[in-house]
Amino acid sequence: MINLNPTPLYRESLSLLTDLYQLTMGYGYVKAGIAEREAIFHLFFRRYPFGGNLAIAAGLQMAVEWLQQFQFDRSDLDFLSILCGNDGHPLFDDAYLRYLSDLRLSCDIDALPEGTLVHPHQPLLRVRGSLLQGQLIETALLNILNFQTLIATKAARVCQAALGGSVLEFGLRRAQGIDGALSASRAAYIGGCAATSNVLAAKRYGIPVRGTHAHSWVMCFDTELEAFEQYAQAMPNNCIFLVDTYDTLEGIKNAIRVGEQLRQRGYRLGGIRLDSGDMAQLSIAARQLLDQAGFADARIVASNDLDENSIADLQAQGAQIAVWGVGTNLVTAADQPALGGVYKLGAIKDEQGNWEYRIKLSETAIKTSNPGCLQVRRYRGADGNISADMLYDELDPPTEHRIVGYDGASLHTISPLDYADLLIPVLRKGSLVAELPTLSDIRQYAQTQIAAYQAALHFRCGLAHNLHQRKTNMVNQHRILRP
Amino acid sequence: MINLNPTPLYRESLSLLTDLYQLTMGYGYVKAGIAEREAIFHLFFRRYPFGGNLAIAAGLQMAVEWLQQFQFDRSDLDFLSILCGNDGHPLFDDAYLRYLSDLRLSCDIDALPEGTLVHPHQPLLRVRGSLLQGQLIETALLNILNFQTLIATKAARVCQAALGGSVLEFGLRRAQGIDGALSASRAAYIGGCAATSNVLAAKRYGIPVRGTHAHSWVMCFDTELEAFEQYAQAMPNNCIFLVDTYDTLEGIKNAIRVGEQLRQRGYRLGGIRLDSGDMAQLSIAARQLLDQAGFADARIVASNDLDENSIADLQAQGAQIAVWGVGTNLVTAADQPALGGVYKLGAIKDEQGNWEYRIKLSETAIKTSNPGCLQVRRYRGADGNISADMLYDELDPPTEHRIVGYDGASLHTISPLDYADLLIPVLRKGSLVAELPTLSDIRQYAQTQIAAYQAALHFRCGLAHNLHQRKTNMVNQHRILRP
Repeated sequence: MINLNPTPLYRESLSLLTDLYQLTMGYGYVKAGIAEREAIFHLFFRRYPFGGNLAIAAGLQMAVEWLQQFQFDRSDLDFLSILCGNDGHPLFDDAYLRYLSDLRLSCDIDALPEGTLVHPHQPLLRVRGSLLQGQLIETALLNILNFQTLIATKAARVCQAALGGSVLEFGLRRAQGIDGALSASRAAYIGGCAATSNVLAAKRYGIPVRGTHAHSWVMCFDTELEAFEQYAQAMPNNCIFLVDTYDTLEGIKNAIRVGEQLRQRGYRLGGIRLDSGDMAQLSIAARQLLDQAGFADARIVASNDLDENSIADLQAQGAQIAVWGVGTNLVTAADQPALGGVYKLGAIKDEQGNWEYRIKLSETAIKTSNPGCLQVRRYRGADGNISADMLYDELDPPTEHRIVGYDGASLHTISPLDYADLLIPVLRKGSLVAELPTLSDIRQYAQTQIAAYQAALHFRCGLAHNLHQRKTNMVNQHRILRP
Repeated sequence: MINLNPTPLYRESLSLLTDLYQLTMGYGYVKAGIAEREAIFHLFFRRYPFGGNLAIAAGLQMAVEWLQQFQFDRSDLDFLSILCGNDGHPLFDDAYLRYLSDLRLSCDIDALPEGTLVHPHQPLLRVRGSLLQGQLIETALLNILNFQTLIATKAARVCQAALGGSVLEFGLRRAQGIDGALSASRAAYIGGCAATSNVLAAKRYGIPVRGTHAHSWVMCFDTELEAFEQYAQAMPNNCIFLVDTYDTLEGIKNAIRVGEQLRQRGYRLGGIRLDSGDMAQLSIAARQLLDQAGFADARIVASNDLDENSIADLQAQGAQIAVWGVGTNLVTAADQPALGGVYKLGAIKDEQGNWEYRIKLSETAIKTSNPGCLQVRRYRGADGNISADMLYDELDPPTEHRIVGYDGASLHTISPLDYADLLIPVLRKGSLVAELPTLSDIRQYAQTQIAAYQAALHFRCGLAHNLHQRKTNMVNQHRILRP
């Protein structure tokens, strides 16, 4: 089902959402007569974020929305026409502005469906098209996919620490901008969060939304008990009382008093929320008090600067917390607020139309980019779990099921019981050909894969043997040719 | 001059950009009959970000844009009408939805002009209006002001480390979402950056934009020399050559060769860019080679994971770098990706229309919020530099020029040579009354203030003596009343 949001978030052309150097290089390509040469670019990251061992691809739907609006409008061209170089003369000539004005996206794009488990060096997205187009769409694709992949991955880690408890995303107030918040809510849901506090994200993306009251509610009344009673009067079907405004244990008792009133009225106490103090101890005490009062199904919610590490600590202390409200550290990915995704040329056609492979050399084999037109093949073992991933070149497909580790040090033969290629066609000649799934299907897909990865006894990841050989030859050639 | 962007960035209503609990509390306030009580809220942070000693207020223009569009539309109300509680019945009744539908912003807002130097505990923004409205606008204001203030402050720190060199903001590809990038470019410019690479930010906000070419340009040609020559052919008035694709010293020599060709054609070599390696050593070598070849005005640009610390390190090593391209660490504020701004109730009117003061107690005096209707008075010394800031209550203005430190430990008398109040009227009864300055005026204002702060021999910051006394009395009362 194609599920593009009917109203794009942004009002104006976003085609200039790019680094200026893409446009100056584009100008150079046109002048050098190579702008239309066919080229292949890959968008990938080199290391797992957060020192972890998994990542979840996210952001493709937004990337597609951006690509579908890509077309320079009059205001874009007017702006470009006034940019000047260091001699005070225009940067761009009229011929180039006309070229940009006529430009329509015509490239092929393949990508990992959102929610796919992804590893370093594997393309999240591949562009095959004119050199110029590949360059002009680079920066926006990086911006969108880097961020959402980062947050989906962070959410997966937080949810894992919650050990089956629910995680609510509460980050709007400290997120990096409006769209920083909306995209984070969406990506956090993909990564496994159960709901968000952000009402607009809920409305736009169909994410469940949660919220009850803050300290300010309690401060508006003379006593905490009165505050809870008034809240229960207004909204008896949404009562999770924040109990730490004054004294947490007293607060729990007040919540129970009001819970009893709710019960008499035929309603159910949803639970309590802890937002400060020793949350392991307090949650254990709260659980006991709630159970004794017959509120075994009332849930204990915790919030207050949580992340996967503090959640794991609380779990280790036996905290009786069923629901975790996670904000800033989740939506900003506070310990690593950017995924280091890059976008590299893999091949370009020469004047005769033959592919020339390209790599970006680096000090180490593992940082050197991979040449070709890359695809990822995922193998499953007899148990149905993910057993291996092979990065291979579609221009020169592998003839064997053998992979070499990215460091070049290890060679493995995979038993080819069951495998599938992961990158799927998204655009063909610039038109959408993929059926983009719903957000809840994406979330489900991510969950299934994380399970099939974590249950695997062994997992190997590497380059197809023939791709490894090609890359090694290219590195050696460069070493000889370049001083 | 009122300089609101004529085309808002977002297409749809952003009025639901809030935490659900604001709407559920709002419902409760209406049901409890206190929604229209007049209340005062303050938005402030408690600690300088990045362990520094300054912060620059930013984001007010976006906050005003958000406030001016604030009005629930049909789609907002339809969405709220389908939300359910734990009994499967709607959260909100029709009367509340009608109330929201009729709601028009009518509060008074005072705020620090963008670019104002701001310290902990000082309101960036103050809301005086109905309890309900104050609550409904909280989250969006926090989102917008937290992020832009964070980035403007980060930029000020980076620019300070550059010691008069230019700082270019290059962060789009790793920023947190589209608006995360656009807002960051704007805030970075306020904080002192000279330009951005983000073309859309340049177009929207009138920020200077810079860019030349990437490694991929060099990789499209057989040799680096050919790549530079082709670039110089296309764009002779914008030549800053990236010299580290293969061998940096060879790259510098190739740049000089092409610089000589440019000179013969009547153009000027802009400079070179270093993006890897030992940039102190390489920049010193590059400066020498460029000077020897008569390119004393060619500038050396550095990029590669820079922040204020790595820039200071390079400066200490004698690096000959005139321009610093700073990306990820600036636009995500990587070492502290969120400002801990909060929004607290300062006072609320009782049924008789008398103000009741409110504080949010905390373990320490310094974390306890300040009561009243707060204003910041900034004093200047005989040298014109900033000498002191007094936080005072407009409902009970100070009669003396005496301040008490926020920790309650020190008392100072200020000589009142020259002072002014910093929070200015922005909205009155919901209508814009401020003249919002241009972005370049904001940037200039920030620069002037940073200079007048850093040149000051002494700077003191605290509460007006009478406000301190009131707060102390309230804390003591709470200690007696609450268990």
